[in-house]
Amino acid sequence: MREIYLDHASTTYLDPRVAGAMRPYFENEYGNPSSLHRKGRRAKEAVENARQTIAKILNCLPEEIIFTGSGSEAINLALLGTARAYKEHGKHIIASKIEHHAVLNALKALKKEGFEVTYLDVDKNGLINPEDVEKAISQDTILISIMYANNEIGTIEPVAETGAIIKKYRDSEKTPFFFIDACQAAGALELNVQKLGVDLLAVNGSKIYGPKGVGCLYVRKGIRPMPLVYGGGQENNLRSGTENVPGIVGLAKALEIAEREREAESTRLAELRDYFIGRILKKIPKTVLNGHPAKRLPNNVNITFLDIEGESALLYLDEKGIYISTGSACTSNSLEPSHVITALGRPYEYAHGSLRFTLGRKTTKEDLDYVLKHLPKVVEKLRRISAVRLENRK
Amino acid sequence: MREIYLDHASTTYLDPRVAGAMRPYFENEYGNPSSLHRKGRRAKEAVENARQTIAKILNCLPEEIIFTGSGSEAINLALLGTARAYKEHGKHIIASKIEHHAVLNALKALKKEGFEVTYLDVDKNGLINPEDVEKAISQDTILISIMYANNEIGTIEPVAETGAIIKKYRDSEKTPFFFIDACQAAGALELNVQKLGVDLLAVNGSKIYGPKGVGCLYVRKGIRPMPLVYGGGQENNLRSGTENVPGIVGLAKALEIAEREREAESTRLAELRDYFIGRILKKIPKTVLNGHPAKRLPNNVNITFLDIEGESALLYLDEKGIYISTGSACTSNSLEPSHVITALGRPYEYAHGSLRFTLGRKTTKEDLDYVLKHLPKVVEKLRRISAVRLENRK
Repeated sequence: MREIYLDHASTTYLDPRVAGAMRPYFENEYGNPSSLHRKGRRAKEAVENARQTIAKILNCLPEEIIFTGSGSEAINLALLGTARAYKEHGKHIIASKIEHHAVLNALKALKKEGFEVTYLDVDKNGLINPEDVEKAISQDTILISIMYANNEIGTIEPVAETGAIIKKYRDSEKTPFFFIDACQAAGALELNVQKLGVDLLAVNGSKIYGPKGVGCLYVRKGIRPMPLVYGGGQENNLRSGTENVPGIVGLAKALEIAEREREAESTRLAELRDYFIGRILKKIPKTVLNGHPAKRLPNNVNITFLDIEGESALLYLDEKGIYISTGSACTSNSLEPSHVITALGRPYEYAHGSLRFTLGRKTTKEDLDYVLKHLPKVVEKLRRISAVRLENRK
Repeated sequence: MREIYLDHASTTYLDPRVAGAMRPYFENEYGNPSSLHRKGRRAKEAVENARQTIAKILNCLPEEIIFTGSGSEAINLALLGTARAYKEHGKHIIASKIEHHAVLNALKALKKEGFEVTYLDVDKNGLINPEDVEKAISQDTILISIMYANNEIGTIEPVAETGAIIKKYRDSEKTPFFFIDACQAAGALELNVQKLGVDLLAVNGSKIYGPKGVGCLYVRKGIRPMPLVYGGGQENNLRSGTENVPGIVGLAKALEIAEREREAESTRLAELRDYFIGRILKKIPKTVLNGHPAKRLPNNVNITFLDIEGESALLYLDEKGIYISTGSACTSNSLEPSHVITALGRPYEYAHGSLRFTLGRKTTKEDLDYVLKHLPKVVEKLRRISAVRLENRK
């Protein structure tokens, strides 16, 4: 059966060049970077080279990069770690309503620890308004969390503009800190932390053709989050545990490739994306694009098909070897409608009928044409059996 | 140059059979286990199969296994997670003085959160006395942490005996919980949690010829630690983040192989170990074995060479392609003497002069004879230049 994977925002395969870079560290250079002998020193060198590679891409110091076991861990270290470390300085946090669950659930936990969170609305395209950030900032604000690009609808947030505003309110303790979740943006958008004006930034491997089980957090010099994991003092005492050397090497390699190919690949993907969106909206009635039409990740297509149930469509397409998602990958195990699509001011049904197609490096026009052949039939079939009949509120 | 790696307690290479088991999950079965389509379901199946494999070895339910990003994270989840979740029930914790830094530093963090910790002495061979655990238990005790086998000196603790005692004091809330750090024991000792009478048990991949960056925690049904990382709700809501599918598959495969080969390999290693210990103690004057002579991991040799400085010996041996450690791998970056060897009631100098040789699957008698050829010369050279002259207190 032909297989067309259009779920690259959930996770990607490992690029063979990344696999090649990792291999020696499984087989021969398997030392523990904390060991003083040659095998340990060579492993340490690999980790430090990876750190430098990433620092160069982020335009920061190598010691500002902290390796973690996942994007979620990097996000949690940024939020829980910083809030707990600076709670004497203030207990107010600001975040957008459409953050990833790693952010939202970490903030829920902080709420139980006595922090207060202001959640910012987004407009109908999923954009926050930097002025809303400014209005929400108080003396008590220590942390602001805005995602760089949304994983579900692909909307790219005005983070640089927001960063510039936050800078004006920074006090002697350097708070409020500005954190951005760049897990979905990496590989598509520039990660220059100086230009973005951010203090903390999370990235992971599994969305950029790198390994799963590894991520990293940029922590601006001078900021000391409290660790989530204590032990041998690795990663500048911020994240203990024997370094995942192959994973770290793989993350750096994946980011390096993504950065090098970013512009050309983004142009290619954006063309495919716009072709695909255009065809669907034209070919299939009662369809609505979710997310911003232009300020959008080049590989993201998220469309609501009114009067259908997303999970059923997903499974019918699965039968044809077409792999997509409905709502975020992290939420697809639950039946809760996407908090992102409902935040756009649309009824629940829009979330239920939303399908996300996320393109990747191997995606071709032919792949999309194959989908365009099967998708209308699936939608038609589901609409025939659907009990719901919503007005098209396009 | 001939390379003889005798630092298997720091970390091991990846067994080719484990690498083979992992490979498909890098290349083709790269789906996100939370995705509902075929590629996601196949990834989920791989994770659940791994969970079952491990549950069988630990003699527990699959849902009692929580995958983490390292052994340290598993340990921290057990300690921080359980203490924070059950603090209303009591704030007293008991641990041995020779626990791994992941335990000791997590407990230090808990102390700052208002918990009280009783540290138990060990005897001259590194053994705790289960009666001391009994004496230390109070109404307020919620957690007891004893390592299964020590990473530095190889001493195997009486955990089953301790588990039986703790059971007598368990109240209606099922506290105190009994946690054992089995990171160093896995592959050498039985991991049957029912026989051991433990509630929480941590294992990782990087010491058992499995991948780095993955570990797991056994959590007895009914116990709900607080998560360290929040997000998509993976791992029964105890550890969020996209599952490291290849890592998890690798951990299960590594544990399966270790378990299958455990008895034969332990017998082989213990013979080599005893040969090596015997030759060193006989051939080199002023040497003292650290750790229990019999209740000892089959691959662990830890000997103090009086009047030498361990790091210098390590580096001289490194020149000969012999890779060992002095003190724990996790502490070898610092100049602090091993807390384990000093806990044996010996002066600091015994820790400074201690060398750890940890044997592995490929270690042969020829390897050890090569070491026995070079080691006496190194020791002699260092003693010639040493300022310290300690009486041999053997």
